[in-house]
Amino acid sequence: NSQLKIFSLNSNNPLAQEIAQEMGVELGKSSVKHFSDGEVQISIEESIRGCDVFIVQSTSAPVNEHLMELLIMVDAVKRASARTVNVVMPYYGYARQDRKAKAREPITAKLVANLLETAGATRVIVLDLHAPQIQGFFDILIDHLMAVPLLSDYFKSKGIPDDEIVIVSPDHGGVTRARKMAERLKAPIAIIDKRRPKPNVAEVMNIVGNVDGKVAILIDDIIDTAGTITIGADALRAAGAKEVYACCSHPVLSGPAIERIENSSIKELVVTNTIQLPAEKKSPKITELSVAKLMADAISRVYENKSVSTLFD
Amino acid sequence: NSQLKIFSLNSNNPLAQEIAQEMGVELGKSSVKHFSDGEVQISIEESIRGCDVFIVQSTSAPVNEHLMELLIMVDAVKRASARTVNVVMPYYGYARQDRKAKAREPITAKLVANLLETAGATRVIVLDLHAPQIQGFFDILIDHLMAVPLLSDYFKSKGIPDDEIVIVSPDHGGVTRARKMAERLKAPIAIIDKRRPKPNVAEVMNIVGNVDGKVAILIDDIIDTAGTITIGADALRAAGAKEVYACCSHPVLSGPAIERIENSSIKELVVTNTIQLPAEKKSPKITELSVAKLMADAISRVYENKSVSTLFD
Ligand SMILES: Nc1ncnc2c1ncn2[C@@H]1O[C@H](COP(=O)(O)O)[C@@H](O)[C@H]1O
Ligand SMILES: Nc1ncnc2c1ncn2[C@@H]1O[C@H](COP(=O)(O)O)[C@@H](O)[C@H]1O
Repeated sequence: NSQLKIFSLNSNNPLAQEIAQEMGVELGKSSVKHFSDGEVQISIEESIRGCDVFIVQSTSAPVNEHLMELLIMVDAVKRASARTVNVVMPYYGYARQDRKAKAREPITAKLVANLLETAGATRVIVLDLHAPQIQGFFDILIDHLMAVPLLSDYFKSKGIPDDEIVIVSPDHGGVTRARKMAERLKAPIAIIDKRRPKPNVAEVMNIVGNVDGKVAILIDDIIDTAGTITIGADALRAAGAKEVYACCSHPVLSGPAIERIENSSIKELVVTNTIQLPAEKKSPKITELSVAKLMADAISRVYENKSVSTLFD
Repeated sequence: NSQLKIFSLNSNNPLAQEIAQEMGVELGKSSVKHFSDGEVQISIEESIRGCDVFIVQSTSAPVNEHLMELLIMVDAVKRASARTVNVVMPYYGYARQDRKAKAREPITAKLVANLLETAGATRVIVLDLHAPQIQGFFDILIDHLMAVPLLSDYFKSKGIPDDEIVIVSPDHGGVTRARKMAERLKAPIAIIDKRRPKPNVAEVMNIVGNVDGKVAILIDDIIDTAGTITIGADALRAAGAKEVYACCSHPVLSGPAIERIENSSIKELVVTNTIQLPAEKKSPKITELSVAKLMADAISRVYENKSVSTLFD
């Protein structure tokens, strides 16, 4: 069998470290620096000839910087005669630009898939793509992991009685995800149904399902500016929910997000570490769960040519 | 004939404006903004269906930002049913990473060529590539312009007697460029020959050619940290040159460059506007010449399907 090598780039080194530790290996020696003019300078400091190489990089902010680092590393790994070039992207940036919603828009999520293939990636491992259809943007193999089991287990461990919980999707697009979590917690679901009666009139939040007297758990894939989730939490409280939790796979948390969450009726926000939170985005209200074991498992299974079962969980 | 449209991105809007003015057209309406999380949001605000579209963007610093803007714009233009997607890159970033100088290095200049093609570019127009071989990295058409005529004309206009001028290449790689300028100014050439007698011993500057009592004009393609050019100028003065000018196509001018130039024996540095100089990089010693007419000419000729003659000038 060929040798396994895991490399980290700059977006999420703590997660890469943790993945390597889970697998009982050392991270490959490499460095990503910049030339004086800001161009990315990559050097791989050990032989990877004939190896199965896994590169861990989330394309979180600064997204263009992290994406170019990744593409240049893929090029370097390919040219260094690796056997396979596997890209591990716990967070896939530009995933929301996945269709032309208006005339003359780019489809950047597809562009990113094409760029990765062109650079020389032979396989990608991702987690909770904004739209599962993005899998079809790739002609190379793709493994699609889910954080729902991890998030569900955390809430299970809180010991809230099953019959008090309701899982809430903040929009119609997230119902499948909410349904998966509800099954694991043996709970019913509710959906926040936003409607704008007329243009330039405030949205009306209507809750489909019963939340009165319940512990509501909002689930989304990405929480970005946190507008949707904090307004949703207020609507759930107004509809009688006694407590509101929120959770997501990818804590983008840009702009006013932290302030909004801290001032909201959300009791606790549970996120994963697909995106590394800088110090200024840490908050006593935010709990971080690690996907390291999940990613390590997927890497091992890909390396050993076994099915990545979390896919179908 | 199909319609011509020129769009600017964010790296060098003044140059794009000037090009459009030279051609007597308006720039196409578009905007490049960022979503709250920093992802690039492009919108093209007029129909370009069936048009010949030219996108003006230098991949100067911040290079990854400017390159991703360009790739996303190319994707958007292609999907908006343009007839041709022409990328006008007055400065081609990552050009110095054009070969594996050490084991396991990427060849980022080739990666960039592949990314542009993958995004959907049908032709590129560039100026003074660091290595002309980069033309061969493209499978699409490429036009390669030169700033030597522009720079030479400027020095001609100074009225320095022909027999006092010597054109100097700062290294062996730049001799062809120096030779082209020397022909236009009917002047001889000299070459700075750097040698390191032993590792960790300072370089020795040896000047091949006669510069004693002459007005030396150093020419390079890129001036980055300005180490080579300022040390070269000192060596020329030491060898008897009475005045030293310097010129280049691409003023990268990173790190200590401005300070070095201001404190150097260089009398005047002549550059072009392929890279937009921010306020803090302006200096009384630096003269900027515009490539707008050159680029406008190339765009017109490509659009009219005529030969881009500057190529062979
Ligand atoms: N980074 C981003 N931040 C906010 N909105 C985005 C971003 N990328 C794309 N979008 C927009 O979000 C919409 C897709 O979101 P969704 O309806 O949740 O799939 C599209 O209309 C995009 O134009
Ligand atoms: N942006 C950059 N700044 C400084 N050096 C670079 C840059 N990009 C590549 N290089 C290095 O410069 C060398 C090529 O320069 P040259 O010998 O002038 O063609 C290669 O060894 C590269 O590793």
